[in-house]
Amino acid sequence: MDDKIKDFKAYREKMNERLLAANNNKVIKRIFNLDTNTYMEGALSSRVKEMLGLVSSMVLRCDDCIKYHLEKCYELEVTSDEMMEIFAVANLVGGTIVIPHTRRAMEYWELLNQEAR
Amino acid sequence: MDDKIKDFKAYREKMNERLLAANNNKVIKRIFNLDTNTYMEGALSSRVKEMLGLVSSMVLRCDDCIKYHLEKCYELEVTSDEMMEIFAVANLVGGTIVIPHTRRAMEYWELLNQEAR
Amino acid sequence: MDDKIKDFKAYREKMNERLLAANNNKVIKRIFNLDTNTYMEGALSSRVKEMLGLVSSMVLRCDDCIKYHLEKCYELEVTSDEMMEIFAVANLVGGTIVIPHTRRAMEYWELLNQEAR
Amino acid sequence: MDDKIKDFKAYREKMNERLLAANNNKVIKRIFNLDTNTYMEGALSSRVKEMLGLVSSMVLRCDDCIKYHLEKCYELEVTSDEMMEIFAVANLVGGTIVIPHTRRAMEYWELLNQEAR
Amino acid sequence: MDDKIKDFKAYREKMNERLLAANNNKVIKRIFNLDTNTYMEGALSSRVKEMLGLVSSMVLRCDDCIKYHLEKCYELEVTSDEMMEIFAVANLVGGTIVIPHTRRAMEYWELLNQEAR
Amino acid sequence: MDDKIKDFKAYREKMNERLLAANNNKVIKRIFNLDTNTYMEGALSSRVKEMLGLVSSMVLRCDDCIKYHLEKCYELEVTSDEMMEIFAVANLVGGTIVIPHTRRAMEYWELLNQEAR
Repeated sequence: MDDKIKDFKAYREKMNERLLAANNNKVIKRIFNLDTNTYMEGALSSRVKEMLGLVSSMVLRCDDCIKYHLEKCYELEVTSDEMMEIFAVANLVGGTIVIPHTRRAMEYWELLNQEAR
Repeated sequence: MDDKIKDFKAYREKMNERLLAANNNKVIKRIFNLDTNTYMEGALSSRVKEMLGLVSSMVLRCDDCIKYHLEKCYELEVTSDEMMEIFAVANLVGGTIVIPHTRRAMEYWELLNQEAR
Repeated sequence: MDDKIKDFKAYREKMNERLLAANNNKVIKRIFNLDTNTYMEGALSSRVKEMLGLVSSMVLRCDDCIKYHLEKCYELEVTSDEMMEIFAVANLVGGTIVIPHTRRAMEYWELLNQEAR
Repeated sequence: MDDKIKDFKAYREKMNERLLAANNNKVIKRIFNLDTNTYMEGALSSRVKEMLGLVSSMVLRCDDCIKYHLEKCYELEVTSDEMMEIFAVANLVGGTIVIPHTRRAMEYWELLNQEAR
Repeated sequence: MDDKIKDFKAYREKMNERLLAANNNKVIKRIFNLDTNTYMEGALSSRVKEMLGLVSSMVLRCDDCIKYHLEKCYELEVTSDEMMEIFAVANLVGGTIVIPHTRRAMEYWELLNQEAR
Repeated sequence: MDDKIKDFKAYREKMNERLLAANNNKVIKRIFNLDTNTYMEGALSSRVKEMLGLVSSMVLRCDDCIKYHLEKCYELEVTSDEMMEIFAVANLVGGTIVIPHTRRAMEYWELLNQEAR
């Protein structure tokens, strides 16, 4: 696995564990829980929901959230052609301020795809 | 047509015309143009793209943008069950700050559905 | 009760009920639930937590969220002197973009206080 | 004067006075003060600074702040051709989410210009 | 002192000095000044005000601002149990988009606490 | 050229090329195109427009966008006295949340100026 992917996953996992191990964190725990449930298959497929999560993360310009949803989209076999259209909506709605995040998203998306080869 | 829908559409149309009729507005015109093209059928369906536009508008908390995409989603036959899941993603990702916009979105969505009866 | 307060409460209540009565709204319901629990007495008092909720709503510039937390702060006997210091932090951190929301917050805060006389 | 302009100015003035008359508002007062000083003639002209204030208000999507800076730009004789280019930058950088605010800005700008005839 | 804390403090101090030493920076200087005054003891304690500053920084997702207020909260003896409730409000109000910032906040908070041992 | 400037430019260029080389990226391409056109000489000079782009990037707190517009402002001979007034507007309108971005902007601005000596 590429180091950028590995490092990101490791840090996220480590700190999530620390947050979940903390005392007095009931609300945080429930939000994490809800985060998992929200993207499950329902009236909309997980695939579409992860796209919704991704585009939201892009217009809110949260790089780590973007990476997370890119991973999920990759697992759920979103194609690169579809991905470019998600990037398009995000850049149109959110403006050129989204471009630097799109550059990093593109890099991470390519890394995820190179993994698989 | 319900007055809330009619008034919103009339104001939007009137002011869009004024913006497009203005001198020296080449960039604005091209953004409007691009706005139309971005949501056309492609690797993703217009239906999914309108959902992406809606969820983006919700987390960025723009009521008029939300209304616009609700209209489009309604035309493209997004169901109320699907809509509730879009609302769910928006409120999870964007937080409780999205709730007041969800109340207004719910009202507008119900008006759009009552129209059709 | 002043009409501005009454109307705001009535609309909020009506639309919350409609959201909670909708099918397929499990996530929304749980977020509403969590919203109630988060502000309960704990390591921090409800009073301080409502102040935290208020200042967050101010810097995120959500008028309805501001009104809601102003009501809660009023119930929990936050004083006007304390309120001005919350406004101060919000305007300092969030910038002059928060001023119009502070004007409306001030108006609502005064209405809440006039009620009681 | 058009009612939309008059009402906006009256409310702003009334509530600013109430904020400035409040006890324990030293920070708010100093922010208001600083707000006046920042736009004064300096290395940059007031005219350019008001444009900077306007475009910032547009990308942050604060309608009342936009109106305020539109008034100032009008007083400082910003032309409609220049205004359209400010709108262009705001919509490009901030995305289509800025369009509804641009519609309202356009309306207010036209009202300000009609005043003068 | 841990390197992450030391480096952050050193960079902040160095660049603040450069900003304050610059010509024509009167407004910046006054904002820095106001920043100090706003958090002083008043109707609300510095302790509560720093919590307000922290939660504002979290929902606005500014990592450096978060670190700064974490340091202040630590100095003012905010407990870890209280901190988890501030994190809870921030994540509830601001949504899951706040989670990556909470992970980094948690890491920095733990570093600050390890210092003291 | 200083490494910070060189690295930033190289990464930006590399990833922009990858985005423009991707299939199915028509919208992205047109946004990039529009981005170039918007800042061209018009009713407002490129110089003023780049200032508008910079202040927008600062209040929206996008470090890479800030760097890009700092480079353009430097090329168009914006002075350091003018720059401090742009920083002032950004920090006033956007609040203290903009300070960490101003520190980094100041550092990059100084690097750009040291280049030239």
